[in-house]
Amino acid sequence: MDILTRRQVLTGSAALVALAGIRSARAQAAPTTAGPADPKLVEDLVAANRILVDQGVVDGYGHVSVRHDKAADRYLMSRSIAPELVTAADIMEYDLDSVPVDPRGRATYLERFIHGEIYRVRPDVRAIVHNHSPSVIPFGVTGAQLRPLYHMSAFLWPGVPVFEIRSAGGPGTDMLIRNPALGQALARTLGAGSVALMRGHGAVVVAGNLPEAVFRSVYTEVNARLQAQAMALGGPVTYLDPEEAKKAQASLAGTIPRPWELWKRKALAAGSK
Amino acid sequence: MDILTRRQVLTGSAALVALAGIRSARAQAAPTTAGPADPKLVEDLVAANRILVDQGVVDGYGHVSVRHDKAADRYLMSRSIAPELVTAADIMEYDLDSVPVDPRGRATYLERFIHGEIYRVRPDVRAIVHNHSPSVIPFGVTGAQLRPLYHMSAFLWPGVPVFEIRSAGGPGTDMLIRNPALGQALARTLGAGSVALMRGHGAVVVAGNLPEAVFRSVYTEVNARLQAQAMALGGPVTYLDPEEAKKAQASLAGTIPRPWELWKRKALAAGSK
Amino acid sequence: MDILTRRQVLTGSAALVALAGIRSARAQAAPTTAGPADPKLVEDLVAANRILVDQGVVDGYGHVSVRHDKAADRYLMSRSIAPELVTAADIMEYDLDSVPVDPRGRATYLERFIHGEIYRVRPDVRAIVHNHSPSVIPFGVTGAQLRPLYHMSAFLWPGVPVFEIRSAGGPGTDMLIRNPALGQALARTLGAGSVALMRGHGAVVVAGNLPEAVFRSVYTEVNARLQAQAMALGGPVTYLDPEEAKKAQASLAGTIPRPWELWKRKALAAGSK
Amino acid sequence: MDILTRRQVLTGSAALVALAGIRSARAQAAPTTAGPADPKLVEDLVAANRILVDQGVVDGYGHVSVRHDKAADRYLMSRSIAPELVTAADIMEYDLDSVPVDPRGRATYLERFIHGEIYRVRPDVRAIVHNHSPSVIPFGVTGAQLRPLYHMSAFLWPGVPVFEIRSAGGPGTDMLIRNPALGQALARTLGAGSVALMRGHGAVVVAGNLPEAVFRSVYTEVNARLQAQAMALGGPVTYLDPEEAKKAQASLAGTIPRPWELWKRKALAAGSK
Repeated sequence: MDILTRRQVLTGSAALVALAGIRSARAQAAPTTAGPADPKLVEDLVAANRILVDQGVVDGYGHVSVRHDKAADRYLMSRSIAPELVTAADIMEYDLDSVPVDPRGRATYLERFIHGEIYRVRPDVRAIVHNHSPSVIPFGVTGAQLRPLYHMSAFLWPGVPVFEIRSAGGPGTDMLIRNPALGQALARTLGAGSVALMRGHGAVVVAGNLPEAVFRSVYTEVNARLQAQAMALGGPVTYLDPEEAKKAQASLAGTIPRPWELWKRKALAAGSK
Repeated sequence: MDILTRRQVLTGSAALVALAGIRSARAQAAPTTAGPADPKLVEDLVAANRILVDQGVVDGYGHVSVRHDKAADRYLMSRSIAPELVTAADIMEYDLDSVPVDPRGRATYLERFIHGEIYRVRPDVRAIVHNHSPSVIPFGVTGAQLRPLYHMSAFLWPGVPVFEIRSAGGPGTDMLIRNPALGQALARTLGAGSVALMRGHGAVVVAGNLPEAVFRSVYTEVNARLQAQAMALGGPVTYLDPEEAKKAQASLAGTIPRPWELWKRKALAAGSK
Repeated sequence: MDILTRRQVLTGSAALVALAGIRSARAQAAPTTAGPADPKLVEDLVAANRILVDQGVVDGYGHVSVRHDKAADRYLMSRSIAPELVTAADIMEYDLDSVPVDPRGRATYLERFIHGEIYRVRPDVRAIVHNHSPSVIPFGVTGAQLRPLYHMSAFLWPGVPVFEIRSAGGPGTDMLIRNPALGQALARTLGAGSVALMRGHGAVVVAGNLPEAVFRSVYTEVNARLQAQAMALGGPVTYLDPEEAKKAQASLAGTIPRPWELWKRKALAAGSK
Repeated sequence: MDILTRRQVLTGSAALVALAGIRSARAQAAPTTAGPADPKLVEDLVAANRILVDQGVVDGYGHVSVRHDKAADRYLMSRSIAPELVTAADIMEYDLDSVPVDPRGRATYLERFIHGEIYRVRPDVRAIVHNHSPSVIPFGVTGAQLRPLYHMSAFLWPGVPVFEIRSAGGPGTDMLIRNPALGQALARTLGAGSVALMRGHGAVVVAGNLPEAVFRSVYTEVNARLQAQAMALGGPVTYLDPEEAKKAQASLAGTIPRPWELWKRKALAAGSK
């Protein structure tokens, strides 16, 4: 994984977007189910929704998904409701074209293609968060690059690309990832990284499992807030260098069950009220 | 709807203010009622008061109104109490001169003319919020223009005028919209837009229905906070361009029931304690 | 009431401080009581303590007092405990030398002289808050002058002096108003105003009654936060001019029961848990 | 205690680190217990964990320890869980090599060496907090020095050194104090002070007892936030001078039971839910 240049970050791939429209056209037949997901995974997905609210990463908008434990070409995500209200009954199964297996008239998130198209090209990714994480938004609309300020956000070390929807969708989009082509362009911008910002919109965060995706969402938000504060103090900011960051990321990965246990306990306790 | 220039924004219309005093003088007889409003509308108005508190848009001050569902020349708003305390029993009916139909000795908001005078000239408006939304206040007292930073606040795209009460009321006002003339001047500054700031005071937010007025109030506050942060990062800020913003506004309008359902559920649950 | 210059603000009166020590020496005999205070006043004082916590004006430190309703030379204030814990049983009576009437071994706030010495020279003052209001502290240690940005804080218009304890107590104080002489020097800096900052320490806020003292404390904090944000936006900030501010202050004074009713209801509900 | 220069602050002692590795190697046999600790001390340690969460000093990470009341060469700290979840049953005993007396398979904090190595060289220290206190982080990665802005944080007066882990551990660490040598290097940077920052990581705070360590952690965080705000106002900031700070520190030390009583009461009430 190389460090991305700012230029790489800002160039979506318009050519691939044109091709991508083709594949999406064929995906309208209802796909078959991969069978029931592990109830523990569904519980974690419900918890993840609420944790992201508790931690200020999402508000009434935003969504989190997880790859199906029984089929790499299926993922699970809530019907279109506010994350704080999600229960196990709201979880739906989608194929990688983001077509729901069993819609039963339930509304789907308009931007579900963020999830399907990233799962398609990133077999290492098993959980995805899309958010409008408040402290992160300013980094998507200015020249300031989000970089890891401390060990908790070491996973940002490869660089955080900014997706410019104009490059993929032209000058007159509604800013939403509303079709497979735009989802594919966003996945290209993300590349092999963990986080991509979306100019004038929000961010996407990916990881190998749900707790890690939540952890990364939380500490991307915290890092953005702290980085803005550090920049305001004046003078140069010392970021983690890549070697430090890679090692810190590996060490911290082993500690994620510690906050996850806390967050999940509180989220589910609040949810049962 | 054209983009307003800063100069247009800052000029109230003193001439029209002088004329406006005449109409207000005739409005002292108690108007007749338009009959009971839809209980669902009253419930939404009560919820709107509490949601605006929950979201940090109003504190012990501020008010929200809705046009009567049975009469375009009547509107509904609480008697003069803190928004957090409003119940259905506190809702009063006003005519467009902002005279209460059935006061029964209840205190009215001194600045009710904000509501009546905007409803009078904006038939498309069915809900109005007046607030001292904290992050918005600084944009009313500096040269910095509030602009849409991301798709959630796309409705700001036509520009956010700043009402200068000195232009309408002369140099020695108490800053309050305490009569029809000042209400009419504010309505002129608002023009066809969704949001106007009031220098040294607060803001007024209008919409086609209550959920949209609350949504716009919330995301005007968020946008102001994020814009200030983006400006502090240094360098130019990329705002939504008008075409993007118009399309995003249209797309987002369809999603407002999602946060509204969440907000209302929480507001009414808290209110029943 | 004239607008204070920055220089007037920063000069305490060392000469008067020297004289003041004399009076304090005689005040060691326990004073007589003025009789029981109005229970409603005590309830309001308890509520004021909790409201100041709820509103983020005080934390585990800070105190609020009220002049006794039956004797102009007595005031009421809690024994030395955190404001959030204050109940009616903790309220003690003091004379203007800040000697408790009936100490019964209870600890008193070390800085009670802030209260006694201001009540002595400001017959118009009937309630006093001392706090470490967070957004206000930076204005006490920099050259930036706190000024009214909007109508809610119009009471700041005469200017907000900064008390420099070195001028009154010499270079080696512990920063605390721990004797009558320092209390008198602070009262001199406050002059006829409503708010004085204390360099490297906090603020004192005075008013004609408890709700107004709480209101002023809350909106001094809010104004400081908003003013810092406005200054960060760059360019000149438009403050209320004195004429506007005087009129706004008069108009707002009549509205204080509105937030007070809300704040008190919430404070006492929380206190009964 | 002299004021540290910035250069002293940034130089760890690589030579001593090399020596320190030797001592740690011998410490692998399970040490004997010093006997049960005072239950009141354990209760305070549990409370300290929760208070640090309530005050925003720690989140799912961070740890607090106290020296054993019966043995200067033992300390008490929770097993490796989030501070908010700590109960008396989670408290473990460690020797100064940070080897647990009775592990029973329980996980220990990877960075426990922070505690053991400071207790070893600072007999005056009886309580230690390690945190990622958010407002403090930026001061560890920029040239801005944390200094006492007001009397509450007077204990910062000797200067706040920044530990640069590269000086002690070379360029490729994972940023964690994961062995005795790094703990000793950090203790050297701390010197005789109360607080040391850790570049790209967090802070360590020490004191003569648990309430004081919590107090110092809380007001280091507050001071950092207020100092950043004061710096943003522009112009020079007036900090406490050393004489003022020494006296204020002494005076404030006597008042710590006031917030501690409040914090502990609230922390234990929340914990019993």
